[in-house]
Amino acid sequence: MSPAAPILRTDALVVGAGPVGLFQAFQLGLLGLSVQIVDALPQAGGQCVELYADKPILDIPGIVESSGRDLTDRLLAQLAPLAPGWHLGQEVTRLARRDDGRFDAACADGTAFDAGAVFICAGVGAFQPRRLKAPGLDGLEGRHLHYHPGTAPAALARFAGQRVLVIGGDEAALLRAAALAERDDLPAVQLMHRRDVLQADAALLARIDALRQAGRIVFHAAQLAAARQDEAGRLLQVDIALPDGSARTLDLDTLVVCQGLSPRLGPIADWGLAMDRKLLVVDPATFETSVPGIHAAGDIAGYPGKRKLILCGFHEATLAAHAAHERLRPDERGPLLYTSSSALLQRRLGRIS
Amino acid sequence: MSPAAPILRTDALVVGAGPVGLFQAFQLGLLGLSVQIVDALPQAGGQCVELYADKPILDIPGIVESSGRDLTDRLLAQLAPLAPGWHLGQEVTRLARRDDGRFDAACADGTAFDAGAVFICAGVGAFQPRRLKAPGLDGLEGRHLHYHPGTAPAALARFAGQRVLVIGGDEAALLRAAALAERDDLPAVQLMHRRDVLQADAALLARIDALRQAGRIVFHAAQLAAARQDEAGRLLQVDIALPDGSARTLDLDTLVVCQGLSPRLGPIADWGLAMDRKLLVVDPATFETSVPGIHAAGDIAGYPGKRKLILCGFHEATLAAHAAHERLRPDERGPLLYTSSSALLQRRLGRIS
Ligand SMILES: Cc1cc2nc3c(=O)[nH]c(=O)nc-3n(C[C@H](O)[C@H](O)[C@H](O)COP(=O)(O)OP(=O)(O)OC[C@H]3O[C@@H](n4cnc5c(N)ncnc54)[C@H](O)[C@@H]3O)c2cc1C
Ligand SMILES: Cc1cc2nc3c(=O)[nH]c(=O)nc-3n(C[C@H](O)[C@H](O)[C@H](O)COP(=O)(O)OP(=O)(O)OC[C@H]3O[C@@H](n4cnc5c(N)ncnc54)[C@H](O)[C@@H]3O)c2cc1C
Repeated sequence: MSPAAPILRTDALVVGAGPVGLFQAFQLGLLGLSVQIVDALPQAGGQCVELYADKPILDIPGIVESSGRDLTDRLLAQLAPLAPGWHLGQEVTRLARRDDGRFDAACADGTAFDAGAVFICAGVGAFQPRRLKAPGLDGLEGRHLHYHPGTAPAALARFAGQRVLVIGGDEAALLRAAALAERDDLPAVQLMHRRDVLQADAALLARIDALRQAGRIVFHAAQLAAARQDEAGRLLQVDIALPDGSARTLDLDTLVVCQGLSPRLGPIADWGLAMDRKLLVVDPATFETSVPGIHAAGDIAGYPGKRKLILCGFHEATLAAHAAHERLRPDERGPLLYTSSSALLQRRLGRIS
Repeated sequence: MSPAAPILRTDALVVGAGPVGLFQAFQLGLLGLSVQIVDALPQAGGQCVELYADKPILDIPGIVESSGRDLTDRLLAQLAPLAPGWHLGQEVTRLARRDDGRFDAACADGTAFDAGAVFICAGVGAFQPRRLKAPGLDGLEGRHLHYHPGTAPAALARFAGQRVLVIGGDEAALLRAAALAERDDLPAVQLMHRRDVLQADAALLARIDALRQAGRIVFHAAQLAAARQDEAGRLLQVDIALPDGSARTLDLDTLVVCQGLSPRLGPIADWGLAMDRKLLVVDPATFETSVPGIHAAGDIAGYPGKRKLILCGFHEATLAAHAAHERLRPDERGPLLYTSSSALLQRRLGRIS
């Protein structure tokens, strides 16, 4: 952590920008509190975007149908006028309560916060790519071994001229294999999955088939056995093991690995908060954890009757915001204001000036 | 109550079709329970439609903006595939727990239910029109005195040929005055409000102005002093008192009265359920009242931290539905199903067959 990084002072720090973190930030902003929001992933939406971006969600009240991505876009649009501070691609690793009741928090990259209240909307944890395990891989990551690289053309340009092996058999792997194979600046792409069955929607599977027939994708039903590097630490070859027990060697420059993401509660388990079966224990009146001023909402919060549904997280975040607002701004206590009738709330949302 | 009325047997009876009652019915239907839903008003939507149909609601998660009416339409569309039984214009007046743990309930008109569980989503109570008070009105209601009559052409046709006085100065009154004045089958409409200031949106006020200029509406800033009937109980005249102390007499056939609706908790207070400051006391794990099997959600439910917001009612209704489902169908207990991944839920919602 760079000692020179400025410390961001904020009323509220929201850890996690899944659906619940997004609405948490909305409710806090609506109450007039300043908000910083952090997510380990490069984009907002949590499980909705990471695990089922294109599936239909049918039980968000008043939204007959949305997809994970569509719901996220709607929540982002609703939050936009409140303009929280954004920190994507950052994991909050440290959180400590100070003697004055405020909180010190920091991300792995050194970004530091001084927050009046903290809202942990961390879902099932920060998503981490499942790691490849085989001899000879040490030191390759970030240079010749990439987990879930971005799929934008700019992100793929770095693979120009390289012999690439994509490992994985689901949508994330196939999308990257297809996008690389469709470029004209690199040789045919190798694709490897332990089974002969690939999983994606019909359109993507057809795209892969066409690329295989055109010789732009070469498929192997096999598993990685070992990798070999030269003295300079450059990837040279991998050995793959076929189902019939035989082995093959592929000459390569780069491995792209998409074997799924798995959530890791990670640092949150070390913050001294009471937990019960991997959930943060909260009071359902305030959604406060065992540490006053630290709230939790969404999939990570546990209390009697808890159901891990998005709409429940919306309520939890709302009561958490109101409880924190009462504590941080005791002078502003008053009757509940409605967005449909309060000029103050409408002004905060940019509806009137 | 007609003793011959058939008794409707149902898993769930939902009392109130405000936003929370509508989503209560949705969650129950999604869990495979049969539902009957009752509201005292002639339409669904509760306060949203009755009190602020056209105002913008900005804090429903994922819906950047909706109006009270729009939100209601969305909830109705979401509920439609689950096809609950509807009973609008009916007040649930009686509710009693039977020895076998099921419930007997009945409406004022004799409609009777035998329900496995009851969900009170009664908001601030059943809306009742504020009554007109003056000598000479006895026995006129329903014949020559109508509170908040429907505004559909079919409902207005009964006023053909009549001399009508509309009493009230808000949107509900002005809408009815304008709709009547625009018909060509009755004489000019009289409109009376105690003050000279009418309250409605600019478009409706302009419509009233035009009708006044055309002589189709005659306005009186005055109050009702007395009414006179003939021997057959037909309305003949009313005396009105003007602000300067003078009086006038109007020859009339019919009074249409829109002096606002006020909610009345009414019978619910007599069902033996624990209450605290006009709210039904509930357990926030199950949203069960003090009587097992009777749940409450929305504005009528009270528990520590309660905020009277629509989105909170959605959560309350959801946990209430899950708790009732566990009690009514213990054999169906299992992991939480998601609408985005469960074929069973998608089938119930008519998405797949
Ligand atoms: C296949 C599937 C289908 C589903 N379908 C439905 C459905 O139809 N309806 C429904 O209501 N629910 C559904 N769910 C459940 C729903 O997705 C979750 O309830 C919801 O995503 C929880 O939201 P959240 O914001 O609490 O957590 P998440 O969506 O898990 O988001 C948490 C975010 O926090 C971030 N994070 C965690 N720790 C840190 C840290 N230390 N620093 C920075 N960031 C961190 C993570 O990267 C993540 O982005 C489904 C779930 C799955 C898996
Ligand atoms: C002006 C105004 C603006 C608001 N703005 C917002 C906003 O922006 N955001 C927000 O979240 N909330 C807002 N609210 C609050 C919101 O309207 C309520 O929280 C919501 O309507 C509660 O829903 P409900 O279904 O619990 O009750 P209600 O909407 O009150 O509906 C209850 C229904 O039950 C019926 N009923 C009652 N008793 C019986 C009986 N015995 N038999 C049959 N039927 C019965 C009633 O007729 C009624 O239709 C606002 C409220 C007002 C007054």
